[in-house]
Amino acid sequence: MKIGFIGLGNMGSGMARNLIGAGHTLTVYNRTRSRAEPLAALGASIAETASEAATGVEVLITMLADDRAVEEIVFGPGSVLHSLPVDAIHVSMSTISVSLSQRLAEAHREKRQAYIAAPVFGRPEAATAAKLFVVAAGAAAHLARCRPLFEAIGQKTFVIGEEAPMANVIKIAGNFMITTVIESLAESFALVRKYGIDPNTFLEVLTGSLFPAPIYQTYGNLIARDNFATEHVGFKLPLGFKDNRLVLAAAEQVAAPMPMASLIHDRFVAALAQGLSEADWSAIARVSYRNAGL
Amino acid sequence: MKIGFIGLGNMGSGMARNLIGAGHTLTVYNRTRSRAEPLAALGASIAETASEAATGVEVLITMLADDRAVEEIVFGPGSVLHSLPVDAIHVSMSTISVSLSQRLAEAHREKRQAYIAAPVFGRPEAATAAKLFVVAAGAAAHLARCRPLFEAIGQKTFVIGEEAPMANVIKIAGNFMITTVIESLAESFALVRKYGIDPNTFLEVLTGSLFPAPIYQTYGNLIARDNFATEHVGFKLPLGFKDNRLVLAAAEQVAAPMPMASLIHDRFVAALAQGLSEADWSAIARVSYRNAGL
Amino acid sequence: MKIGFIGLGNMGSGMARNLIGAGHTLTVYNRTRSRAEPLAALGASIAETASEAATGVEVLITMLADDRAVEEIVFGPGSVLHSLPVDAIHVSMSTISVSLSQRLAEAHREKRQAYIAAPVFGRPEAATAAKLFVVAAGAAAHLARCRPLFEAIGQKTFVIGEEAPMANVIKIAGNFMITTVIESLAESFALVRKYGIDPNTFLEVLTGSLFPAPIYQTYGNLIARDNFATEHVGFKLPLGFKDNRLVLAAAEQVAAPMPMASLIHDRFVAALAQGLSEADWSAIARVSYRNAGL
Amino acid sequence: MKIGFIGLGNMGSGMARNLIGAGHTLTVYNRTRSRAEPLAALGASIAETASEAATGVEVLITMLADDRAVEEIVFGPGSVLHSLPVDAIHVSMSTISVSLSQRLAEAHREKRQAYIAAPVFGRPEAATAAKLFVVAAGAAAHLARCRPLFEAIGQKTFVIGEEAPMANVIKIAGNFMITTVIESLAESFALVRKYGIDPNTFLEVLTGSLFPAPIYQTYGNLIARDNFATEHVGFKLPLGFKDNRLVLAAAEQVAAPMPMASLIHDRFVAALAQGLSEADWSAIARVSYRNAGL
Repeated sequence: MKIGFIGLGNMGSGMARNLIGAGHTLTVYNRTRSRAEPLAALGASIAETASEAATGVEVLITMLADDRAVEEIVFGPGSVLHSLPVDAIHVSMSTISVSLSQRLAEAHREKRQAYIAAPVFGRPEAATAAKLFVVAAGAAAHLARCRPLFEAIGQKTFVIGEEAPMANVIKIAGNFMITTVIESLAESFALVRKYGIDPNTFLEVLTGSLFPAPIYQTYGNLIARDNFATEHVGFKLPLGFKDNRLVLAAAEQVAAPMPMASLIHDRFVAALAQGLSEADWSAIARVSYRNAGL
Repeated sequence: MKIGFIGLGNMGSGMARNLIGAGHTLTVYNRTRSRAEPLAALGASIAETASEAATGVEVLITMLADDRAVEEIVFGPGSVLHSLPVDAIHVSMSTISVSLSQRLAEAHREKRQAYIAAPVFGRPEAATAAKLFVVAAGAAAHLARCRPLFEAIGQKTFVIGEEAPMANVIKIAGNFMITTVIESLAESFALVRKYGIDPNTFLEVLTGSLFPAPIYQTYGNLIARDNFATEHVGFKLPLGFKDNRLVLAAAEQVAAPMPMASLIHDRFVAALAQGLSEADWSAIARVSYRNAGL
Repeated sequence: MKIGFIGLGNMGSGMARNLIGAGHTLTVYNRTRSRAEPLAALGASIAETASEAATGVEVLITMLADDRAVEEIVFGPGSVLHSLPVDAIHVSMSTISVSLSQRLAEAHREKRQAYIAAPVFGRPEAATAAKLFVVAAGAAAHLARCRPLFEAIGQKTFVIGEEAPMANVIKIAGNFMITTVIESLAESFALVRKYGIDPNTFLEVLTGSLFPAPIYQTYGNLIARDNFATEHVGFKLPLGFKDNRLVLAAAEQVAAPMPMASLIHDRFVAALAQGLSEADWSAIARVSYRNAGL
Repeated sequence: MKIGFIGLGNMGSGMARNLIGAGHTLTVYNRTRSRAEPLAALGASIAETASEAATGVEVLITMLADDRAVEEIVFGPGSVLHSLPVDAIHVSMSTISVSLSQRLAEAHREKRQAYIAAPVFGRPEAATAAKLFVVAAGAAAHLARCRPLFEAIGQKTFVIGEEAPMANVIKIAGNFMITTVIESLAESFALVRKYGIDPNTFLEVLTGSLFPAPIYQTYGNLIARDNFATEHVGFKLPLGFKDNRLVLAAAEQVAAPMPMASLIHDRFVAALAQGLSEADWSAIARVSYRNAGL
């Protein structure tokens, strides 16, 4: 398939690579051009502008950092909205707000272009290994056409329904679930540590009994180690904060109070006040630790 | 082994049955005598008093509802403290406070009796099926002697260390983790429902990707169904409230703030104000639903 | 003084009237022209556009509903930024975000216009009665020139300093304090009501002892009455929600966690889910009442 | 009147002194006898036991630190319950739980003794200056008999009704209101400080406009100073924590969720983890400051 791919960050690079590996023809675009070059070496064309990356393609994939980046690409000057062919599909894989996804759906409808929201779960390692989980929503026919692409980058695709922005709701709600795991581990580890118990002992009980999920293992290890400054950073704290803002905004839009999300909001603010803006988002655990005198 | 067993509720009955099945000799005691009779049919002796159940045994197991029940049995008039032989082991499996476990440790030390704390994870079905998870702490030699008993009732035993009350800390912290799962599911289900998404769709994404743990499946189903009145009640709401009080008390004892536990405290209070005292503890989800207008 | 006045809502109308009463010459502008006519009857000129209202004046006062309204007037097409004379003073009295106030300060500096932030405390009755409290910040010389205007509309002026946006910080923080009074009254009234005590009895103790402040009397009465639907609405719930968003945004900007503001955020969301969007903002008390089964 | 007075702490000493000054005959008792001697110098008799202090009196006043102290005096060995004459009145002025007050009401009824709950608002200075606020409940005839005593120690008496424990509800709810003032000042001061604004500037705006209540002045000064270690301690942090526990317990008893009280609970725990157990209870503000990086 002839694919335009915009956004070659930690996640996008791995995904684009896997699409090339699956035999697709990619035209890639990234604001910082140097990140595109390794893909050119694998056969991708490099577009000079976002608009160019959308020209003449069957599918345009965007994998960008946040709402602002997507708005700039789609609605800004030299917008892809004007270069994307009629009937081509824009597959938005970024973690963006529900309201932006709603605006995208409408804008593409007006231009008689197709729109799918297909955000993903997984950290950069999973993107590289084609092990992402894809959460997709849009018209059934469009989803069917994109299915091979999802299979090239992920281990599993969940189809949510016809209304694209609902995939974004699911993605945002899923990220919220992850932050609640982080916060609950932080609070319970603070508790056991104050009793002199190694948090790894507690973590082994959890993951060896009722919580045998990788998410508990991954974050449990990071939080037990309590060394956020020098650790490998999978997902930066300000990005996690952004995602928490997304869930609060989505919740506000439909009037669903989410006190746990509010609590976690305060954790992110406190973590930033403690200078943790370069740490992994699991570093919000430091707030629980510190408030417990640890 | 010659075992005294006190407390034949939903959990204790299954456990006692499995101990008999494994070939041990049981003297059982329950305040309401009728609950002891089915075990007599399997070969257990019925004691008329708690004290009698502790007389002449190698191991005394207690599996009671709360601190007050344990205090009555151990420190009350005709206490087992006086009838339990020197060097016999009291295995306390109830979910009790850390401070009561500390008092028990001390009281048994004075009487030259052994003391192990070995609370369990698992609902009544798991007790019946000998699939509990046992979290045990105490002197290594005593733990070794009790190992066959733990194997008769559970699928796995976690050894926490020499200090018995630390097993209670782990148990209480583990229950806290479960309530955070309940609350996070409740809040995110309220969100997706307000967007018109079936919570089961969201649950499938969770359990099919990052959260493949039975705890998410079990509570996810209950909370998605949103029918707490007539459902099978595994663990009553007031007992869950009690456990949350235990974690707040344990946290207060060592000065570890746990805002999620405080939030959940408020959920339990609101659920009781809505008349949900007979419902499963997952019914605290009704508070999130109701506050979202669902 | 020759004054342009933009924004003739419940607050602005009373303020403009008092300025005319104090002998100033006003050119007024309001999006809905009909609201300007009563002022014309008192001698004000009606401008056809915002830009016209700013032309040739010594002082331009804006009293608008929110950030968006102010942005439109100041930065939108036909902006007052271009018509306001050099050295004239823009006195921004609206409750707006700190960051918008910072942008306004910068924009006016570039145009060599003066800028003062002077938000007010007080409900519409106070605006009518010239009993507002004015919180002003900006260059001392500019404040001095505006002093007679503040005296015409308020009972007291607080000077915060040279940096205009700091007045907005104070205003936003003050509104936060009011919402905490509302929420604390709501929670304690729910408590006493559940004990069968008339909340007015409790309110009399409060205002007759340690809390003899009008704010407790005013909101105490509203919340004790618990009849938000048909009551006189002084300040609509969605506006209060907006103000709470302002404090959370201001707090996020400088990394100061404010858990009470987060809690109140959730109250506003829950109140909206219960259909209280037309009620006074004190109706967030209904959430506490309802959660207590009242 | 012939009065027994038990409890000569910071509060009780001043109250007893004022009763003597008003011409009443006092028999005083304090666990640490030395605190009774200054009163003997003023004409009080010193009782050797609590029981003796209750013998032959018309009114017995208790002003003790907490539930445990009151339970010991009233229900312990050599209890005043047995020495207090029939028809004599026990006036319980301590800040105790609603449930203990309910037990006291019942115990005295059985002994045909009268019982009034009359807790007070005010710090030790107010006790010395006879400026307390008395919140009294009980049978009208008994209240009438005690009226002169309340006038001797306070500036104002609020009569709540016939049911004594309701005065305790009011007292506990009032203390909750004070902690919400402390916490709201702490959060807003953290905010303004992060913007470089002196919190005293903000405090002047508050107390000079909508919040002209002594409580804001008193705690505002303490919190603005942010020097909790060396300040004069009016009310120790662990006592404030105890009072917050009382409101949570009272709220739980009638199923009224109070999320602000839960939030404040966490503040007290965090403050203790930071070693503030000797500070004034307003030192919970340090938690807000510290979480904001101040």
